[in-house]
Amino acid sequence: MTPIVKAILDKYEGTSPAVKANLARILMQGHLGGTGKLVILPVDQGFEHGPARSFAVNPAAYDPHYHYQLAIDAGLSAYAAPLGMLEAGADSFAGQIPTILKVNSSNSWATSIDQAVTASVGDALRLGCAAIGFTIYPGSDQIFEQMEEIRALREEAEAAGLATVIWSYPRGGNLSKDGELALDVGAYAAHMAALLGAHIIKTKLPTDHIEQKEAKPLYKDGDFASQAARVRHMVQASFAGRRINVFSGGATKGEDAVFQDARDIRDGGGQGSIIGRNTFQRPREEALAMLARIIRIYKGEE
Amino acid sequence: MTPIVKAILDKYEGTSPAVKANLARILMQGHLGGTGKLVILPVDQGFEHGPARSFAVNPAAYDPHYHYQLAIDAGLSAYAAPLGMLEAGADSFAGQIPTILKVNSSNSWATSIDQAVTASVGDALRLGCAAIGFTIYPGSDQIFEQMEEIRALREEAEAAGLATVIWSYPRGGNLSKDGELALDVGAYAAHMAALLGAHIIKTKLPTDHIEQKEAKPLYKDGDFASQAARVRHMVQASFAGRRINVFSGGATKGEDAVFQDARDIRDGGGQGSIIGRNTFQRPREEALAMLARIIRIYKGEE
Amino acid sequence: MTPIVKAILDKYEGTSPAVKANLARILMQGHLGGTGKLVILPVDQGFEHGPARSFAVNPAAYDPHYHYQLAIDAGLSAYAAPLGMLEAGADSFAGQIPTILKVNSSNSWATSIDQAVTASVGDALRLGCAAIGFTIYPGSDQIFEQMEEIRALREEAEAAGLATVIWSYPRGGNLSKDGELALDVGAYAAHMAALLGAHIIKTKLPTDHIEQKEAKPLYKDGDFASQAARVRHMVQASFAGRRINVFSGGATKGEDAVFQDARDIRDGGGQGSIIGRNTFQRPREEALAMLARIIRIYKGEE
Amino acid sequence: MTPIVKAILDKYEGTSPAVKANLARILMQGHLGGTGKLVILPVDQGFEHGPARSFAVNPAAYDPHYHYQLAIDAGLSAYAAPLGMLEAGADSFAGQIPTILKVNSSNSWATSIDQAVTASVGDALRLGCAAIGFTIYPGSDQIFEQMEEIRALREEAEAAGLATVIWSYPRGGNLSKDGELALDVGAYAAHMAALLGAHIIKTKLPTDHIEQKEAKPLYKDGDFASQAARVRHMVQASFAGRRINVFSGGATKGEDAVFQDARDIRDGGGQGSIIGRNTFQRPREEALAMLARIIRIYKGEE
Amino acid sequence: MTPIVKAILDKYEGTSPAVKANLARILMQGHLGGTGKLVILPVDQGFEHGPARSFAVNPAAYDPHYHYQLAIDAGLSAYAAPLGMLEAGADSFAGQIPTILKVNSSNSWATSIDQAVTASVGDALRLGCAAIGFTIYPGSDQIFEQMEEIRALREEAEAAGLATVIWSYPRGGNLSKDGELALDVGAYAAHMAALLGAHIIKTKLPTDHIEQKEAKPLYKDGDFASQAARVRHMVQASFAGRRINVFSGGATKGEDAVFQDARDIRDGGGQGSIIGRNTFQRPREEALAMLARIIRIYKGEE
Repeated sequence: MTPIVKAILDKYEGTSPAVKANLARILMQGHLGGTGKLVILPVDQGFEHGPARSFAVNPAAYDPHYHYQLAIDAGLSAYAAPLGMLEAGADSFAGQIPTILKVNSSNSWATSIDQAVTASVGDALRLGCAAIGFTIYPGSDQIFEQMEEIRALREEAEAAGLATVIWSYPRGGNLSKDGELALDVGAYAAHMAALLGAHIIKTKLPTDHIEQKEAKPLYKDGDFASQAARVRHMVQASFAGRRINVFSGGATKGEDAVFQDARDIRDGGGQGSIIGRNTFQRPREEALAMLARIIRIYKGEE
Repeated sequence: MTPIVKAILDKYEGTSPAVKANLARILMQGHLGGTGKLVILPVDQGFEHGPARSFAVNPAAYDPHYHYQLAIDAGLSAYAAPLGMLEAGADSFAGQIPTILKVNSSNSWATSIDQAVTASVGDALRLGCAAIGFTIYPGSDQIFEQMEEIRALREEAEAAGLATVIWSYPRGGNLSKDGELALDVGAYAAHMAALLGAHIIKTKLPTDHIEQKEAKPLYKDGDFASQAARVRHMVQASFAGRRINVFSGGATKGEDAVFQDARDIRDGGGQGSIIGRNTFQRPREEALAMLARIIRIYKGEE
Repeated sequence: MTPIVKAILDKYEGTSPAVKANLARILMQGHLGGTGKLVILPVDQGFEHGPARSFAVNPAAYDPHYHYQLAIDAGLSAYAAPLGMLEAGADSFAGQIPTILKVNSSNSWATSIDQAVTASVGDALRLGCAAIGFTIYPGSDQIFEQMEEIRALREEAEAAGLATVIWSYPRGGNLSKDGELALDVGAYAAHMAALLGAHIIKTKLPTDHIEQKEAKPLYKDGDFASQAARVRHMVQASFAGRRINVFSGGATKGEDAVFQDARDIRDGGGQGSIIGRNTFQRPREEALAMLARIIRIYKGEE
Repeated sequence: MTPIVKAILDKYEGTSPAVKANLARILMQGHLGGTGKLVILPVDQGFEHGPARSFAVNPAAYDPHYHYQLAIDAGLSAYAAPLGMLEAGADSFAGQIPTILKVNSSNSWATSIDQAVTASVGDALRLGCAAIGFTIYPGSDQIFEQMEEIRALREEAEAAGLATVIWSYPRGGNLSKDGELALDVGAYAAHMAALLGAHIIKTKLPTDHIEQKEAKPLYKDGDFASQAARVRHMVQASFAGRRINVFSGGATKGEDAVFQDARDIRDGGGQGSIIGRNTFQRPREEALAMLARIIRIYKGEE
Repeated sequence: MTPIVKAILDKYEGTSPAVKANLARILMQGHLGGTGKLVILPVDQGFEHGPARSFAVNPAAYDPHYHYQLAIDAGLSAYAAPLGMLEAGADSFAGQIPTILKVNSSNSWATSIDQAVTASVGDALRLGCAAIGFTIYPGSDQIFEQMEEIRALREEAEAAGLATVIWSYPRGGNLSKDGELALDVGAYAAHMAALLGAHIIKTKLPTDHIEQKEAKPLYKDGDFASQAARVRHMVQASFAGRRINVFSGGATKGEDAVFQDARDIRDGGGQGSIIGRNTFQRPREEALAMLARIIRIYKGEE
């Protein structure tokens, strides 16, 4: 184990050696192993947007093996997916890459801003996962129920030695559409995930919009024009860097934008990217090349 | 065990030998045993439409023994029914055909698009079943609750060595009536069942309608005019064929239509039919003849 | 045990010897013991209509002992009542007559078409009961919750060796007032109870009204003008006679109507009556005489 | 034990010796010990109306010890209060008077006609209580949930050897304001408590109003002008006197009215009073004198 | 242990030695150790108002270690915070100050007047806490559910030897905005917490407004113009001083106001302050100086 990774683990106080070991599995994996940085491949788009909108542009991706292999070949840190998706390659790829079982999911037809719990800690143990993943929607009418679900799942996961990753995505309720990506809202969402006991916090990259009237005075003296500065604030809101922050890639976009995001995350002190559609919706070779460059960026090589 | 069946079972990674053994029981049963194809008799119409609309045209079918005997005599792969229906022949037909306990059901008077859980995994074990069956209604306001119910039941079934069959029938919410049978919606529904961990996925045969605006561009280059092509897409959406797909027969219709469906399912790479009203609402001899021909179609003999 | 009773018990496949023994206790009890017919005294009117409307016309009936003694002296098959009512005579009458604990109840002030669960399987065991009784209201907005309650209670009862009696009374939702007693609706209700695993099905005697548009063609060729024919259809809908059907007496009415009902139930192949208000709201001697005659009718003696 | 108390206990059939022993503790306590009559001090006004409206007129009563001491010094049969109130004197007064833990409570700000469960059977055991107390509101939209709560609590209490006291107070739903105190409604409420398995039934003293249209004919021939006659009907509705009935004192009123109530309860065959505000809202000496006289009334001494 | 603390503990009747030991840990800690007074640092503002509104004015406070160190260096009695916040310093500060795990929390976006349960008694045990903390909102539509949650958590905490602190903050329902801070409402809220079994009751300092019409006559003769008199009434409403009362500091305000509050709490017989924003939103040295002076006030030194 590298000193950088040891230093990160040391920040996880009140955490069992088993959970730390699973965090270490992720942090020591792949091309970024030992650097304290990480890139995770998430494939829950099938639940969220359906199979055609997820995989039709790259039909090889209909096969669950495709994603395991992509994550392994790209030298990523971990692979995150819902139950069926992980299970379908569980034997073939056992021990080749840490997996994160996404235990709740929404879908395109949802009539409330909520998710269904679709897998259990027992499933994660059975499949040899390193962590569970759970989405909360701060701002939604269902946020209290979501918090109570992850409270119970996190406690059960911790008792089983699994780490917990929280996707914290502000949505609904009194939030404006711009507010969902606002800096104050994103920092609040990251902080909530930290307070709930997340070991790894996944958020979106925020804009420089400030949503809450009461928060505006507190941001007016800071300079949040650069994305790196906003990332730095997100890290600050995550217990001043005591928790790992990773940022989602969002919808498919140009390669240059993807690389710039990675540089900003790195320069702002974020630990990495969780990048799905921007990889598996590209041809495999193109995706591998892109991921290689992202890894070089996180290594500070470019 | 035939190599074809072994190859199918090998796709069920992360699955216990006990569950695989129950899948094998179904795949090795009857006239299609060993071919990798299957035909299942489902008799849950009594819950869904009431006894008269189900059985009055063929009164012998009021007797639960009738259906066991029909499935056995026709050389089918399995028989699926609710608790009382299975129980009423459980001793007489023990060990003669694999049974699937349908653990939830709706009815004609339902005032919400939902089902009641009407049997348990414990019941399935007690009755010697090979699998449980569960319906979800993607699109409905209750879909999250349904998913959480099958999540728990599937985990319990798996721990008990039973396979899980999910009936995935889009209905309600923002779906249009045409949308319930749309190709994109059907593929999404099949994919959801796979993500939820279904071992066997039961859907309806989709039309060539595309419901979701965002999905239209992704389908416009494909040729889905033929039913076989649409079946092929459903299989693709089910983890690129890593899960068994069976298709329901729908309302009673002409024999030719039934046979054409079977040919299309076969040609599209589907594993088989789950065919209820089209059998037990015909006179027994006629039903047996029809099933014999369906089996020959799946064997590629006509 | 008589061959008739043995034949009835043999129809209960997949059922434990303990449950069969409790069914046998009921079928071998009293003046109808061994005939395969049964008459049950139910006293849940206190919950349903309150004490004055139930007992004021015959004040001796305010005392729970009255009903035990009436059922015993009349040579009935079983006595069914809510928790407090059964408990109040549990020591005095222990072992003298099989008892059925009614585990849910409604009341005159209910603001939804539902019932409260008011007793448990543990209570039934403690009081030495032979069975639990549970009401469902097919058609009501709460039917799914009711089904899920009886599903759990039935499983627990079966594991404890107790039989399950389901009162299946269509009410509410989209049903018209006439529809609550319609033949198609009653047959559907009886079938649902059978599918839920009821060992004894209690319904009302249906009229010849057909409620469901889709069901009308299926009934138009049958002759359901006589009540006996309608009873025969109810029995048919109950797994072609594989389950015991008993019919409720309804509101207090003339003796001749009560006797005619019994003849029609007998002639239609029903197993018996569950008759409350028509007995305990009459003077004791009159009630005993009436019950004696009903028993003779079921014996085919008049 | 006196023959009168033994006779009362004998009416509790199907009840464990442990529960009977706790009923005996109450019936053998204080100045009425052995007479079969009882007076209970309830102090749940702090929840229901707040501390100032309960205790400001007699500030010594803010101290939980005050009530224990009052009940003991007055020679009452039991003291009933919520968790915190009982706990605050649990060591000082252990073994000096039987206590009843009130396990649910409402408050002045409630926006539904319901109560919260605020203590458990485990709490009652830990505090050495003889019984639990629970309020139901027959007629309210929440009555089914309340019944299901007391069903579970009663079963747990019984298994632990504790008696159950049900406060049955009609309120809400379709009941008119006058109806809450109507004789037919009160008798129905008492009967419901008995059916739910209450060992002691607490109701309000009813007026001669008859609320239910269907019940009017059944009461028109009785003479319920006197309060004693109405009490007698309440006792009749409680399994013809097989259950202990106590009546609440209501809001603070003149002493003469309190004494008249006690005489009417006694003459009508009720077992006693549960009297709170009329005692602790008076100066201690005045309250003791009043309680002494109530006790003499129940003893038939005046 | 000092006689003052022993006297306080003796008031906790019916309470296990383990819980008393944890109360003693708090009462014997820091500069006020042994005086019977206490000052607690609560840091749940991150959940309630978000990180920027909580910490931006004093960015060092983004680090969870900051608060542990502040509470220790100021010689406070305990430190209260949500799960993640406590966990993040759990190893570094183990055994240095008693901690209180705040097990429920709201947030600025909540669309109902409620909180989510975000931690468990198991978490509190694992982190070595002395107590759990829980907020109720008397008056809100959710108060019954909140009471049932704390009922269960308190019982579990007590069985594990942990003390329970209840934050009782009237809000919502029929309460006016002024009513939330009214004296009668505050006293009612404190009394409810005591009845629920709180060992330490946290409320806001009330105004002299009386909200409830029925309560006005009961307050009109008292003199509640001074804040000390109002504190005295709050203590009276908390079982006449048998429970520990602490008062929250409210929004950031001038130092003089903070000191006056402490004097009033002391003079009115309250046990202390729970003071968050007024400390961590000031520079550390300023906060330490302020806390030192508050402690001197509670010691009666100024």
